[in-house]
Amino acid sequence: MNDVEVDRNGLEVLERGECLRLLAASSIGRIGISIGALPVVLPINFRLVDDQVVFRTGIGSKLDAASTDSVVAFEVDEFDPLSHTGWSVVVSGTAHEVSDPDAIAVLQSSNIPRWAPAGDDRVVAIGTDRISGRRITHNRPIGREDLRP
Amino acid sequence: MNDVEVDRNGLEVLERGECLRLLAASSIGRIGISIGALPVVLPINFRLVDDQVVFRTGIGSKLDAASTDSVVAFEVDEFDPLSHTGWSVVVSGTAHEVSDPDAIAVLQSSNIPRWAPAGDDRVVAIGTDRISGRRITHNRPIGREDLRP
Repeated sequence: MNDVEVDRNGLEVLERGECLRLLAASSIGRIGISIGALPVVLPINFRLVDDQVVFRTGIGSKLDAASTDSVVAFEVDEFDPLSHTGWSVVVSGTAHEVSDPDAIAVLQSSNIPRWAPAGDDRVVAIGTDRISGRRITHNRPIGREDLRP
Repeated sequence: MNDVEVDRNGLEVLERGECLRLLAASSIGRIGISIGALPVVLPINFRLVDDQVVFRTGIGSKLDAASTDSVVAFEVDEFDPLSHTGWSVVVSGTAHEVSDPDAIAVLQSSNIPRWAPAGDDRVVAIGTDRISGRRITHNRPIGREDLRP
């Protein structure tokens, strides 16, 4: 029962539990949003809280406007160029402001830093119902191309 | 004339030349695309060639289908959690397949690795006409929140 599922690109498919474990151990990801009808990807600090991706946005910022009640993508990855191993986890879901005072109190205590330092902010969460992950395993011998700069 | 432009979030605004220099020194970024009407962010290996972001996709893959002649976002970042410094560069533009044999020969010699190991591939480029970058400079004293895990 230890079969590893591999996708058509040769990447190992990660199960939901493993995806959540990787998110829980990370604190920087990237959010994919639309600004002015153009797709944009921005780095954000986040925490995984109750299986939700939670982050802070500056009130009135472009990220704030684009990530409230909108469908967004969120991605975290880690990669070791020397061993050519790594993984990525992708979440797609609707981002919504967290307004319940009790929930905000819990989130404040989990201390989510903001990427940008200035301004008032609000707390936004993305559900992880749609989550997927892939891992690169080094399944080929190291060739000359791996050793070039 | 050494004024540093700062945006409303307190982040230093990087000029185009600095953005391109940072991209040229990097090899892993994330692309923001739409798959099945949902936004998705995926890691890719890339090279900056003639001021274009160039990468390889597996023919027939979801990335391939979603990034050919579509408007995409592309992002690269680097972050030091200890010093709370970092930068990010974002490109938005139309991705197009590179089909000129001479251009492909040049690109092959620049040896762009693929994130996923398997399958035939094609070379795709994103222009950098729309490029922007931000840098976090540690402009506040280190507080207790920086020292928490």
